[in-house]
Amino acid sequence: MKTPRKLLLLTDGYGDDHTAKTAINLIRYKPQEVVAVLDRRGAGRTSRELLGLGDVPVVASIADAPDANTLIIGIAPPGGKIPPPWRAIVLEAIRRGLSIVSGLHDLLVDDAEFVEAARQHGVELVDVRRNDEHDVANRKGIREGCLRIQTVGNDCSLGKMVTSVEVVEGLKQAGVDAKFVATGQTGILIEGDGIPIDRVISDFVNGAAEKLVLANQHHEVIVVEGQGSLFHPRYSCVTYGLLHGAIPDGLILCYEMGRKAVYNMPEFPLPPLAEARRFYELSANIMHPCTTIGIAVNTSKFPEEEALAECERVSEELGLPTCDVIRHGPGPLVEAVLELKRTLGK
Amino acid sequence: MKTPRKLLLLTDGYGDDHTAKTAINLIRYKPQEVVAVLDRRGAGRTSRELLGLGDVPVVASIADAPDANTLIIGIAPPGGKIPPPWRAIVLEAIRRGLSIVSGLHDLLVDDAEFVEAARQHGVELVDVRRNDEHDVANRKGIREGCLRIQTVGNDCSLGKMVTSVEVVEGLKQAGVDAKFVATGQTGILIEGDGIPIDRVISDFVNGAAEKLVLANQHHEVIVVEGQGSLFHPRYSCVTYGLLHGAIPDGLILCYEMGRKAVYNMPEFPLPPLAEARRFYELSANIMHPCTTIGIAVNTSKFPEEEALAECERVSEELGLPTCDVIRHGPGPLVEAVLELKRTLGK
Repeated sequence: MKTPRKLLLLTDGYGDDHTAKTAINLIRYKPQEVVAVLDRRGAGRTSRELLGLGDVPVVASIADAPDANTLIIGIAPPGGKIPPPWRAIVLEAIRRGLSIVSGLHDLLVDDAEFVEAARQHGVELVDVRRNDEHDVANRKGIREGCLRIQTVGNDCSLGKMVTSVEVVEGLKQAGVDAKFVATGQTGILIEGDGIPIDRVISDFVNGAAEKLVLANQHHEVIVVEGQGSLFHPRYSCVTYGLLHGAIPDGLILCYEMGRKAVYNMPEFPLPPLAEARRFYELSANIMHPCTTIGIAVNTSKFPEEEALAECERVSEELGLPTCDVIRHGPGPLVEAVLELKRTLGK
Repeated sequence: MKTPRKLLLLTDGYGDDHTAKTAINLIRYKPQEVVAVLDRRGAGRTSRELLGLGDVPVVASIADAPDANTLIIGIAPPGGKIPPPWRAIVLEAIRRGLSIVSGLHDLLVDDAEFVEAARQHGVELVDVRRNDEHDVANRKGIREGCLRIQTVGNDCSLGKMVTSVEVVEGLKQAGVDAKFVATGQTGILIEGDGIPIDRVISDFVNGAAEKLVLANQHHEVIVVEGQGSLFHPRYSCVTYGLLHGAIPDGLILCYEMGRKAVYNMPEFPLPPLAEARRFYELSANIMHPCTTIGIAVNTSKFPEEEALAECERVSEELGLPTCDVIRHGPGPLVEAVLELKRTLGK
């Protein structure tokens, strides 16, 4: 990837708050690297107007972002295939000399037309999801002095990555040597390392998660970004393997206020939070003693007063610290991590 | 693959009853296709002496099995990599014009030397685990008139495939239109179709399992071969996704008599059967109403009297029909499937 990265974020046609989550979180955590958002619907506006945050200009064409050196393709529809209208945009970006970074399952490097264009114009194609993980878990060499926290959720796309990043930032501010362990394409683009766990061959998912623990356990605390949900008809495989490979000591359970059903699958109601918590704990404890230490609520669709009431209600119901890390900061969750650290003597 | 297949089964150096399970089960279910077993330790003996079943000759070299047209590479150590001593054997087989069929994760077609040799000698390289599954589960078009049974286990390598095959045979003999749905390389080699679920990209495991249901639900009953175990530090990811994608109505819980710890990981004790049953049911019921209908015990390491006592004890403890399908036939499990079929009106 070119450094310093000067990012043009492609959201064209997919700029809602879920499918544009890569763009939203790069603006949130790497604003100094983001040059513009490419989205014809929002041209002339700012990222705050289009996506709810940041002062990044939204442009209608690549020509309108002459400083960009890298085009970022974020999340697409289920399955991660490249939307057909984006082909022309990607090819134009290549012709203009931009590197292309994609988090899709459909790999750029498997696309003969992209590969040929990139060769002609001397640009790099980076597939964040590409990996060659081929090792099983062994449960050898785990440093129990490192506290392992994992974010989990009652669904996908509701804030597990953001919660992980914010809790790690809070821990660092409290003087703790903490590390955000990325397991998805957005987290990897932000943190600069990690494994795209949902594209690992299933036999090696537990092993890849264990590898992330081994690679990062020299830190005092690691916060492993969870994926999907144990209740998701599509992605529960990923969630279970990640949970069993990362062998967390503590879980932070994430949910989105107001969401009643599985994202994009309205016929599947979400389980009650208490039930989700219980099943995550049962599942995690198969491999390692583990407890839920707090709840992270995404309240972004509700006004402040209702958000606070929700946090209070849930905190009381589950007997756990509860907050919206974006709205209120991660303080209660950071404190919960520190308390678990003291309790376990880690 | 050449037809009719005339199989030479490679077990050299790995001929114990777990790692040679592909060879053992091809001898069990496709004896008419097996020409010989290639294993230098057993040369001059029969497969019954080396592997416990069948009247197949064991040979020390490929030259001693001149009728063979296909070399089968079965299971290898964890991770499925090709053992280095086998390279020379594979290359010699290619030179002698045998097709090579491999169930290993390390693909034959990714090995430049094998590919070049196969090209020179005009033989086919078949990787049973190779797949291009790229679809998520959708839970659309499921025919609820088809009864879905899945075998599960408290560990890997203990008889889930054999149980599935035997129960399907028993159902057929009872006049039911039943289908064995293979999800592993041995099952696929026996049945001739299926998906090697443990090599599917994790995001698509639930989807691949669902695809197997959709492809086979025109039968009255399908019995889906389970993989791994929800309690296995290495492979639990595969098990969970398969369970959630296949949405079984009924489970047959398999275990091996006398086994106390995870296969090849003695530091991990197996959960009590009742606990395993409870957690499988909890997990399956997240997606679809499901109950355990019977227990399949692998008693192969014990004498008849002890085996019978074990079945009686477990049947009483769990209140479920219990048998060793090889030793006693699958009768009680077949009856349990038929009873569930009646109960659900399928």
